[in-house]
Amino acid sequence: MEEINNIEVTPCTESDYLKPLRVHYNQNGTKKSWDFMRTHDSVSVLIFNTSSHCFVLVKQFRPAVFMCEWERNKTQPPQSAEKPEEGASEAAAPAAEPQEGQSAAEGESSSSPWPPAAAGVTYELCAGLVDKPNLSLEEIARQEVLEECGYDVPVAKLKRITSYRSGVGVTGAKQTMFYAEVSDDNCVSAGGGEPGEGELIEVVKVPLHEAMTFAYDERIPKTMGVIFSFIWFHNNMSPKYKISTNV
Amino acid sequence: MEEINNIEVTPCTESDYLKPLRVHYNQNGTKKSWDFMRTHDSVSVLIFNTSSHCFVLVKQFRPAVFMCEWERNKTQPPQSAEKPEEGASEAAAPAAEPQEGQSAAEGESSSSPWPPAAAGVTYELCAGLVDKPNLSLEEIARQEVLEECGYDVPVAKLKRITSYRSGVGVTGAKQTMFYAEVSDDNCVSAGGGEPGEGELIEVVKVPLHEAMTFAYDERIPKTMGVIFSFIWFHNNMSPKYKISTNV
Repeated sequence: MEEINNIEVTPCTESDYLKPLRVHYNQNGTKKSWDFMRTHDSVSVLIFNTSSHCFVLVKQFRPAVFMCEWERNKTQPPQSAEKPEEGASEAAAPAAEPQEGQSAAEGESSSSPWPPAAAGVTYELCAGLVDKPNLSLEEIARQEVLEECGYDVPVAKLKRITSYRSGVGVTGAKQTMFYAEVSDDNCVSAGGGEPGEGELIEVVKVPLHEAMTFAYDERIPKTMGVIFSFIWFHNNMSPKYKISTNV
Repeated sequence: MEEINNIEVTPCTESDYLKPLRVHYNQNGTKKSWDFMRTHDSVSVLIFNTSSHCFVLVKQFRPAVFMCEWERNKTQPPQSAEKPEEGASEAAAPAAEPQEGQSAAEGESSSSPWPPAAAGVTYELCAGLVDKPNLSLEEIARQEVLEECGYDVPVAKLKRITSYRSGVGVTGAKQTMFYAEVSDDNCVSAGGGEPGEGELIEVVKVPLHEAMTFAYDERIPKTMGVIFSFIWFHNNMSPKYKISTNV
């Protein structure tokens, strides 16, 4: 699907996106410090299309996931590569020290070749950062559904599922998850994100009857939000929509 | 519970824990770059105590969460502070630019007072980093259950629930979730983590019949792993253990 090449990793002394900070504090009288990063809160949206009885997800190449896969494969013996169904035999791969200035072309037969681009592609809920001070969470969620997936859905149709903390060790941001029912009539564009902002998002549909199998298939790289929201739907919407329960 | 004071935030030019890297690549012919951080994969464990019919969670002060709450409160008008049940009225707070050299004591009546320590305390699954090259994921999970929660559970009793990608924008690490049934007979210590490593972990029990209410109560700060795993248990273990379904 994606073609990824000319990969090169460099140290990053000054980033507009990742700004480590250090907080010093006393906890019950003991002096401590912790390195963290400030980040925005976020929203995510489980979209269900009632015309096609499909969930609408986004799929995109995630450089951080790609690098993580490369790291893991590099330190894993080839014969134990990714056999999720055999949990006990999966080698626990350590993250190695940062490699500075690494460079290799995809498929190059070096000692640690780059994985296929697909290794960095993940299925995710439609989501976005809470970075617009004057908009409610619902309005931000609505904009993301429109920009990423092409559905124009009224704010009033966004149902709040719940909220939780993410990345508690590093960012501690709050994520709020919504549910949006859409129909083909709400579809006003192809979605795909903002190409001007470098977004290359593919909109994908997961049929309702395949949802639970999809959720637990570890060969399909996805976020916990996808798994949780599919199960939430299964538990809360199944009286309304028939869903396969053979999992 | 926790007493947190003498809080000071400083820039962090050199961190042993957060090392931003930049990957340059071509995606379908377009030159791109992405800032990310290398991190370890991790394991988490849903622990169910069959003697007391309770889930066993860990609770700890998370500096990153605390800072995030401070950030959000600082930019939110006081009257709209944390009303999860009124999602539509919750102001969308932006993360402001990093504040260098901020310093304030807890409760100080400055323009942006520190929140109570409780704002940084989260409920989480027992979890740990995959940073020991010679141990399987199950063995690492077993060690975490012992160190953090004080239960000595054989590796063979760890059931793999599933795996997923976390922090897809920044770290992209893989998390694998396990389920462990324990009894009071397996309890060999109080748990609480490794004080030598600065861990201050409180082991808490959530009774089975309160689990679903706990999961969806947004006033209780928690990770998505807690919510997802409680629901997974509800769906998969409820024939075995009676669980309240009035949610």
